[in-house]
Amino acid sequence: MDRWGTLRLPIVIDSASVATGQRSLGDPDVRYSLWPPLSHGCPQTSSPDVSYPVEVDYDYGRIPTDFLTGQTAFGAGLERWAPLLPPLAAPGLGEGDTPLLEIGEGLYVKDESRNPTWSHKDRLNRVTTSAAVAMGAPGVVVASSGNHGASAAAYAARAGLRCVVLTSPELPPAVAAFLSAYGAVVLPMPTEARWPLAERISDEFGFHPVSNLTPFHTGHSFGAEGYKTVAYEIAAELGVPGAVFVPTGYGELLFGVWKGFIELCRLGLTDRVPRLFSCEPAAGGPLAAALRQGVPATRVTVGATDAYGIDCAVNGYRGVLAVAESDGRALLVDDAEMRAAQAELAAQGMWVELSAAAGLAGLRTLSDAEMVEGPVVCVATSSGFKDTGGFPSALAPLDGSWEPARERLRAAGIGS
Amino acid sequence: MDRWGTLRLPIVIDSASVATGQRSLGDPDVRYSLWPPLSHGCPQTSSPDVSYPVEVDYDYGRIPTDFLTGQTAFGAGLERWAPLLPPLAAPGLGEGDTPLLEIGEGLYVKDESRNPTWSHKDRLNRVTTSAAVAMGAPGVVVASSGNHGASAAAYAARAGLRCVVLTSPELPPAVAAFLSAYGAVVLPMPTEARWPLAERISDEFGFHPVSNLTPFHTGHSFGAEGYKTVAYEIAAELGVPGAVFVPTGYGELLFGVWKGFIELCRLGLTDRVPRLFSCEPAAGGPLAAALRQGVPATRVTVGATDAYGIDCAVNGYRGVLAVAESDGRALLVDDAEMRAAQAELAAQGMWVELSAAAGLAGLRTLSDAEMVEGPVVCVATSSGFKDTGGFPSALAPLDGSWEPARERLRAAGIGS
Repeated sequence: MDRWGTLRLPIVIDSASVATGQRSLGDPDVRYSLWPPLSHGCPQTSSPDVSYPVEVDYDYGRIPTDFLTGQTAFGAGLERWAPLLPPLAAPGLGEGDTPLLEIGEGLYVKDESRNPTWSHKDRLNRVTTSAAVAMGAPGVVVASSGNHGASAAAYAARAGLRCVVLTSPELPPAVAAFLSAYGAVVLPMPTEARWPLAERISDEFGFHPVSNLTPFHTGHSFGAEGYKTVAYEIAAELGVPGAVFVPTGYGELLFGVWKGFIELCRLGLTDRVPRLFSCEPAAGGPLAAALRQGVPATRVTVGATDAYGIDCAVNGYRGVLAVAESDGRALLVDDAEMRAAQAELAAQGMWVELSAAAGLAGLRTLSDAEMVEGPVVCVATSSGFKDTGGFPSALAPLDGSWEPARERLRAAGIGS
Repeated sequence: MDRWGTLRLPIVIDSASVATGQRSLGDPDVRYSLWPPLSHGCPQTSSPDVSYPVEVDYDYGRIPTDFLTGQTAFGAGLERWAPLLPPLAAPGLGEGDTPLLEIGEGLYVKDESRNPTWSHKDRLNRVTTSAAVAMGAPGVVVASSGNHGASAAAYAARAGLRCVVLTSPELPPAVAAFLSAYGAVVLPMPTEARWPLAERISDEFGFHPVSNLTPFHTGHSFGAEGYKTVAYEIAAELGVPGAVFVPTGYGELLFGVWKGFIELCRLGLTDRVPRLFSCEPAAGGPLAAALRQGVPATRVTVGATDAYGIDCAVNGYRGVLAVAESDGRALLVDDAEMRAAQAELAAQGMWVELSAAAGLAGLRTLSDAEMVEGPVVCVATSSGFKDTGGFPSALAPLDGSWEPARERLRAAGIGS
């Protein structure tokens, strides 16, 4: 269990955090000290059949009553919420404070493409890189072919740590450039080889693991804490919405948003918690399957989907908690529904990754009878530049004279 | 001169703006009404040899004394500065409020990749699209193969206007997808054909032109006003820096930043103006040439450079004003210097377009004797995803076993 403690002691961080320790999601009475972050979930309650994550607990009595609305002394972005985060030992990149844009009557989009590496993952990596810094690790290791890896690389660079990213072998050049730009060592390899190698690199070199190492997803025990700030920002700007629709892979973002709202409610700062709707690709959907089967986690076969950012074969217990406890639902959206939502967002000026459109796509699958009370927030996780294919074929060039241009415009409904 | 007034009258906008009219940069005594925006620069002072832009004038006496520091009633982002902008008639996308990140002692980077379409151009397009809305135009037309076109397309979509983007024929698929996603009509054609066709589309269909239509650059007469908000944000967060280094193409951003600081100083809200350093690709550099020649604008031959976002053959008078009046300098940076600055920024967690690194590259060309007083701000205009080439070749995949991975890590200095 104590994988790090024998290597080095955590640096004492002067921090506004009131974090007190870690607590099992498998049994809330099972508690651990805050350091080291448990990188393999809860060892006491987990079994080969199920992995339970841990979460961070806080001394909530020390949270000021103006936590949500006051101009705090802690700063902007994630710093604003420092008391309810693990210590922010790593320097930031101005993550958080993303816009909430109204695209319909009472329908809002939280545009997470506005983070430092243009996805929501930056909220997580500020927190996990901070854990690596606090542990005195020389670097971080992450298995990812996309947003998570790039974000980990950026935060590691900013903190002066090395970063190793284990990617799939089919990495497109633009994404390889993205990952490599930050100075990360990028190692493409077969998907199933990545997790054992992450473990080995962590063991051999003391690199802090910032992605999952268990059969069912538990991930970094501090990571979802960073996502709570999405809830805090929404509550501070809009109040508590009726429902939040979240693109869902392993469910860390989903859980973080739910936990953020739960905390505000328990603190008496708000009076309710929104319904959380997970939105998974219909090609897979392990969270929907786990809820259907009444189990904490399960495995599914993932069919073809272009939503590569959220096409997971296993879920984590965090997502089950968020959906079940909030009276939410686990929705499935197919690629055509995500493309329609992507087009709807673009028509409002937001170009998002296909996966990032899953939230709005989920809302659009609801029938009139199922419609939720507003206001509704759909989280859009990432920029359209993160998609690596599905681009239209080249447009035929014009010669620059008027008539062919006019014809092209007429075909598009301009001047016809 | 009055290209729009006969077509339709501007919609009266209920706005916080105290804009009073347009004023020639060729002769400050030459004034025009605020509507319509003069799309061909100042007709009175311009000649075939030089095009003078116009700027927007304001009733500065109506600006509150807490303009810079107060929590204003106007909102966040560009809205916060609404009194000193033309009327913001078009809906926003949460542009502005970008982070100012310290990357060295007194050295800051303004990360403009955090805007809605991931470049500084969003500040301009919020303002120019507002002009199109105010004029009752059915759409906008823009000649651009990159950031400007994408931003115009996004703001037009958000405002419910059509958008025609005239691009170069070599448009890469990812950029075509970016432009097309927002519903813009993308017409690739030879570069030199784009401006006459923009004019024609404007004439025939009443589309509002949001890019330049004159031999030397004048651009949209309201556009640079949007860039002033960069100066306001810097001044509000940091105070007035000693110098600002700006990636420079036509010099609209450069001028906007300078004008913003000038206004604050004239209002008595600050006590000085920073030195403005233009940073152009060494392959061209029309602003540096114009300053050398002592002329308001000139034309140069542009050699090979990957900094496609700022490789301009002509300058505009705005840039001459900003550099000369602020005791600044016109710097030239070659691609190697921009790549080094790009790497320096990435090592701090910021992956920027090559052009966007020109600001920091310019600072790094200064000798110790030339060094400026701090603090210094380098504007980074855009995300690394906007570069369309120069990506490293594919990494050789590993088989997932330990030894080859360890060898790759050792070569990167990990565990050696």
